[in-house]
Amino acid sequence: MTSPGLDILAIGDAIVDVIATCDEAFLAEHDLPKGSMQLLSPRQADALYAAMGSARETSGGSAANTMAGVAAMGGQAAFIGQIADDQLGKIFAHDMHALGVAFDTPPLASGTLPTGRCLILVTPDAQRTMNTCPGASHELRADALDEAQIRAASILYLEGYLWGPAGPRGAMERAVAIAHDAGRQVAFTVSESVCIAGRKEGFARMIEAGGVDLLFANEDELFQMTASSDLDGALAEMAAKVPTLVITRGPAGAIAVERGQRIDIPAAPIPTLVDTTGAGDLFAAGFLTARCRGVGLARQLRTGAIAAAEIISHFGARPEADLKAMVAL
Amino acid sequence: MTSPGLDILAIGDAIVDVIATCDEAFLAEHDLPKGSMQLLSPRQADALYAAMGSARETSGGSAANTMAGVAAMGGQAAFIGQIADDQLGKIFAHDMHALGVAFDTPPLASGTLPTGRCLILVTPDAQRTMNTCPGASHELRADALDEAQIRAASILYLEGYLWGPAGPRGAMERAVAIAHDAGRQVAFTVSESVCIAGRKEGFARMIEAGGVDLLFANEDELFQMTASSDLDGALAEMAAKVPTLVITRGPAGAIAVERGQRIDIPAAPIPTLVDTTGAGDLFAAGFLTARCRGVGLARQLRTGAIAAAEIISHFGARPEADLKAMVAL
Repeated sequence: MTSPGLDILAIGDAIVDVIATCDEAFLAEHDLPKGSMQLLSPRQADALYAAMGSARETSGGSAANTMAGVAAMGGQAAFIGQIADDQLGKIFAHDMHALGVAFDTPPLASGTLPTGRCLILVTPDAQRTMNTCPGASHELRADALDEAQIRAASILYLEGYLWGPAGPRGAMERAVAIAHDAGRQVAFTVSESVCIAGRKEGFARMIEAGGVDLLFANEDELFQMTASSDLDGALAEMAAKVPTLVITRGPAGAIAVERGQRIDIPAAPIPTLVDTTGAGDLFAAGFLTARCRGVGLARQLRTGAIAAAEIISHFGARPEADLKAMVAL
Repeated sequence: MTSPGLDILAIGDAIVDVIATCDEAFLAEHDLPKGSMQLLSPRQADALYAAMGSARETSGGSAANTMAGVAAMGGQAAFIGQIADDQLGKIFAHDMHALGVAFDTPPLASGTLPTGRCLILVTPDAQRTMNTCPGASHELRADALDEAQIRAASILYLEGYLWGPAGPRGAMERAVAIAHDAGRQVAFTVSESVCIAGRKEGFARMIEAGGVDLLFANEDELFQMTASSDLDGALAEMAAKVPTLVITRGPAGAIAVERGQRIDIPAAPIPTLVDTTGAGDLFAAGFLTARCRGVGLARQLRTGAIAAAEIISHFGARPEADLKAMVAL
C-alpha cells in the first residue's frame, strides 16, 4: 500500500484560521448555530471579525490540517489548494512547507480574491463554530492539478467543504478519474456542505458509481446521508456502498466497517478538552497514516483517536506535541 | 493620578509576532544569540522565515503588549504605532480594538512598506530569540501623534525599541514635550536598542534633562546604562537620575526605587514556564495599571509580577487568562 514517493495527496481549502474565544451569548447574538460551519461573504466576515475578540492566527483548512498531521506522524504528504499572492497566502504556504508537506499550487495573482480565512469561535465548552470566508480557496480549478502527483500517491484524499462550489468540485471529479485510472484509492471526508440537498444527490451518485473507496463522516453526517434513523441501519446502508466506512462519534469513539468487518473503538483519553477544532481532520490523519503503514483496521482507528485527542487538548487544528512519538507507528 | 479619560498612552512598534519553536542547534546555525533581539532586512527575514518551523501568529510589539495587558486588567489604554494597509495591519488593529485599546494611527498606504513582523523562536528552555523586520513600524512620524490624547493620559509610556530609528525617536521626543507641558508623567522601557553606543548617550542626555519620570529596565540593561558593576551601585547611580526606577530580574523578582525607598519582591510562582516572550511587557502593564489605581509601590510591583507570570505560562505575549480577576485591583 505504500508508495516510494507519496502516501497521501489531499485536495482542500487553503485557509488561515482566526481563532478567538467567545461566550454562548455572542453566538446567539450573531445567529450562529454552535458547532456549525457557515460561509460568509467578505462583508459578513468583516462585520463578524470586527465584533469578535482578540485572535490568534494559524494555517488551517480541513484537508490541509489532515496533511499537517500525516507529515507530523512521518507520512509523505502533499496538498493542492488555492491561495492568493498575499500575506495570509504566504503564511499558509510557509506552514505547509515547514511541516514537510509538498505544496506547489500557484497562488492567484494579487489584486484578485484574498486568501481565505475561517473565523473560529470557541465557546467555554470547547465547541467550535466556524465562519469561513473562502476567498481564493473556492477558485481552485482542474488546471491546478498535478496529474503525475495524483498518480504517485497511494491515497487521494478529498475534502467535503470543497464539494459545494462548482469549480473545485469539478477539479476533484477530475482528480478522482486520474487516481482511479492509476489504480489508487480515493478517500473522501464528508462535511455539512456535502449534506445540503442538491449536492447530496450528486455526491450519492459519485458513491454509487464507485468514486469513493474510503468514506470518513461523523455520526450526524452519516444520518443525513442515509435513510436510516438508527446507527446500525445507517452503517449497514452506507457500508454497502463504500469498501471502507469510518464514522467518528466524538467522545463516543469511532467505528470502521470494511469487508463485512465492523470495529468499534472508544475515544482516547485527554487531560483537558480545550478546543474541538480539527478533531475530525486529525482523526483522518492518524487513520490514513497508519493505513499507509499496512497495520490492521483496529490500529488505524486507534491511531486516529490518538491524533484527535492531541488536537482537542489545545487551541488550533495543527499538531503541537510530538505526534510521531505518540502514535509510534 | 487617574484621568477620567485615559490611564496610559503608549508609543511603540506595531508588529505581528510569528512564533515557532526551535532547538538550540537552529539558533547556532543561524548565528542568533539566544534571548536577543535583532533587526532583519526584508530579505533576511524571508530567509529566516523559510527556514523556521510552522508558526502561529498573534499581534505583538512590546508597548502594544503592555497596553493589551493594561486593558485586560481594566485600565484605560491607548496606543500609537505605525501599521500598513495590509492583512497583518488589519490583524494588529483588530486585536487592539477587540481588547478595548484605543488605536487610531492611520495606516501607511498599501504598496509601501508592509506591516512589521517579529519572527520569535522559542527554545525548549522557554527563552525567546526575537528577529524583527520592522517594516511600516519604523515609519512612525511626529505628525501621527494625537496631541489631545497625549495631554489626556496620566502616563505616557515609550518603548525603547523605537529609540533606535531617527523618525520614531523624534516622534517620541515630541510626545515627551507635550506630556510634560500637560503635567503628565513619562515612563520609558529600556531595550537593548537603547543600550547601543550613540543611542545610549542621547538617551542619557534625555534622562539628565528630566525627560523620564519612570524607568523600566531589566538587570542587564541597567548595568549597560551605568558605570557600576554591582547591583546596589547600579541601582543607586540610576535612581539618582529618575524619580521612579523599576528593575526586573527574571526568576529573581523585581526591585523598585522611588523617593529613597527601595522595595524588592520575588517572582510570582508559575505552574509551567513555556515562553518568556512578553514577560517585561506584562510586568510593566501590571505595574502601571496598579499605579494608576493609586495603590502603594509594593502592590504595583506585585501586580507586575502576577501579570508577568501569566504571560510566561503560555506561548505568545498577549494575556489569555482573566488577568483582571488575577490581579484583583
